[in-house]
Amino acid sequence: MIGFEHMKKISRTSPSRIVLLIIDGIGGLPHAKTGKTELESARKPNLNRIARDSLCGLIDPVSPGITPGSAPGHMAIFGYDPVKYNIGRGVVEALGMDLELKPDDIAARGNFCTVDDRGIITDRRAGRLATEKNTELCRLLNNIAIEGAEISVLPVKEHRFVLVLRGKTLSPELADSDPQQLGLAPKKIEALLPQAQRTAEIANEFVSQARSRLQHESPANMVLMRGFSRRPDIPSLPEIYKLKPAAIATYPMYRGLARLVGMKVLPGGDSITEQLDSLRGYYADYDFFFVHFKSTDARGEDGDFQAKVQAIEALDDALPNLLSLDPDVLIVTGDHSTPATLAAHSWHPVPFMLKSKWCRPDNVAEFSERACLAGGMGRFPATEIMPLAMANALKLDKFGA
Amino acid sequence: MIGFEHMKKISRTSPSRIVLLIIDGIGGLPHAKTGKTELESARKPNLNRIARDSLCGLIDPVSPGITPGSAPGHMAIFGYDPVKYNIGRGVVEALGMDLELKPDDIAARGNFCTVDDRGIITDRRAGRLATEKNTELCRLLNNIAIEGAEISVLPVKEHRFVLVLRGKTLSPELADSDPQQLGLAPKKIEALLPQAQRTAEIANEFVSQARSRLQHESPANMVLMRGFSRRPDIPSLPEIYKLKPAAIATYPMYRGLARLVGMKVLPGGDSITEQLDSLRGYYADYDFFFVHFKSTDARGEDGDFQAKVQAIEALDDALPNLLSLDPDVLIVTGDHSTPATLAAHSWHPVPFMLKSKWCRPDNVAEFSERACLAGGMGRFPATEIMPLAMANALKLDKFGA
Repeated sequence: MIGFEHMKKISRTSPSRIVLLIIDGIGGLPHAKTGKTELESARKPNLNRIARDSLCGLIDPVSPGITPGSAPGHMAIFGYDPVKYNIGRGVVEALGMDLELKPDDIAARGNFCTVDDRGIITDRRAGRLATEKNTELCRLLNNIAIEGAEISVLPVKEHRFVLVLRGKTLSPELADSDPQQLGLAPKKIEALLPQAQRTAEIANEFVSQARSRLQHESPANMVLMRGFSRRPDIPSLPEIYKLKPAAIATYPMYRGLARLVGMKVLPGGDSITEQLDSLRGYYADYDFFFVHFKSTDARGEDGDFQAKVQAIEALDDALPNLLSLDPDVLIVTGDHSTPATLAAHSWHPVPFMLKSKWCRPDNVAEFSERACLAGGMGRFPATEIMPLAMANALKLDKFGA
Repeated sequence: MIGFEHMKKISRTSPSRIVLLIIDGIGGLPHAKTGKTELESARKPNLNRIARDSLCGLIDPVSPGITPGSAPGHMAIFGYDPVKYNIGRGVVEALGMDLELKPDDIAARGNFCTVDDRGIITDRRAGRLATEKNTELCRLLNNIAIEGAEISVLPVKEHRFVLVLRGKTLSPELADSDPQQLGLAPKKIEALLPQAQRTAEIANEFVSQARSRLQHESPANMVLMRGFSRRPDIPSLPEIYKLKPAAIATYPMYRGLARLVGMKVLPGGDSITEQLDSLRGYYADYDFFFVHFKSTDARGEDGDFQAKVQAIEALDDALPNLLSLDPDVLIVTGDHSTPATLAAHSWHPVPFMLKSKWCRPDNVAEFSERACLAGGMGRFPATEIMPLAMANALKLDKFGA
């Protein structure tokens, strides 16, 4: 794609509306018995109807063979080079807590863990602690005071927490303390650049005080830190594309990612039906909508093929409410594949379709991995989606004389 | 594609001949009634016959979603990264006047416009002035004399003119004076880099003197300047590919672009029949021919679907004269799409075919958008065309040991 500096020059506002429906983890692999993927197995008349009027294809969120985390998967679809704009683990966790990070804040992902008498890690997750216990322990650590940084410790689920260091002249250039294996002691946190020396001292002091406060706890008697990072400096969608974008997502992390790129986060409810009702309610107020559907990914990660098929069918049933809005541009795709047979995110390209008055339809009549292969876009990088969306909404001027 | 420095090393001369036929704006969109594009609607036995023996595909002139101007569309096909080698508006206008720009010349596009008593723009095009009046006014401005630059003012059509500043140490790093909207005064021309300060003064002095000389004119009592630019420093096709290239184009801008990349411009006549006669006449003297067919784009921009279909049919009728030359490599494609339904250039990929003794034909039997999708090249960047042309002409050595 052309660079943001060029895109800024040719983008323009117009009354047309773009709806981007991201079906998390939608791509799959064939079931051993039927030879059909989850999408190929699902009854999905509405998705197929959209496919018949659409420009179809398959996206590579990062590049062939690379399995994306949720953050790069979404960043690529939002038009950001997912390698250049890779977001640190700590920041992703903080976004997932609906935390508003300031530009200078350093966030890190923490695990409560178990160490033996010699300080050797025996359980990296402290027996997947109950979230209530986690909350109690975080309260214990939250009032640790260290000169030079304001410290916040926030519980996530089970053994997970987020550490936020707020202060001037802090640096995120720190190595992890988490050795990511058993039988070793947690590592001292090292500064990766000289200017991170003081921040490393603060982080190590935090770990040391946390260990003292946790010494009589069992099994959570220690912490492991990783992914020290700062919110990246990202040009926003309004800056690049002159859009007024909004997000409707039930999970906090996706709301956080949306906020990071300049979207307004709208109330959504817990089900796709409520999300699409919200879309309808706010339809007049924005010109770009990101709607995030989660359960396809969750069922894929569970390894439950049939449940993932049902999630697709439930989504399909809800679509008429979206279709009746008749968006100028409707894009349906996913941030990555989550084949139930793998029970994990995967590297496989993800079905994509774009419907607009100005798309050049191809001969694809079904929304599935194999059918989309014959689509007009073929296989292509996810970062090309935003320029295509803008073009089909007639929101781009000509490039060059 | 590999860089020019590599291409220079592996390219070689040989007696084989390449003919590149660019059908301007050839790509289209389906007609609402028939569901068929202009190409799919046209009777075109010769184009289809070529397709059956060709390697087919669809090109992206710039990248997905990006609508190219004519200059980037052609530059990409000639093998130049259209973003890196983006040619300024002023230079493109000058090329369109068959002006030979020297490497240091600064060219800008000018509009005659109307301002009110307070200097506020009330018409950016001075009522689309008659070209005769424009010519008279350009004569009035052409003898403006400013220390440090030789000034030429040349009429284009209606309200458009080209300003050329010739002198040493001039810089094209100038902002526009044209605010591109009504209700504002023309802007002072600002230097974008310190070394452009003197050029900015000269340009502002030109505008000031032009305003004096036009003060009693109506409606053309002021000028607006934009797109200050210099001919880019471009390695030529003879340098990169060791070709002896020639161009046959009826419109000056395409002749100018051809000259810019080192082609010899041949006489062509006004019709495709005359152009192909010229090709035959000069066939022994060059080894690369760029033939430009314009009317498909013009009819597309008119929004006249049927007329564009007829333009395709007229071209097809003329092709036997080309085919009987039996070029070693024949490439047929376009610089961008111009769907009649949009009545403008568009971002849609453009059908492509390459016929040679050494191409690997695919199963495509028709030259159209949908048919070429299944071609051996799939969808690909236009900058890959030149290496493909060279390879199929057996004019490239092996890369690497």
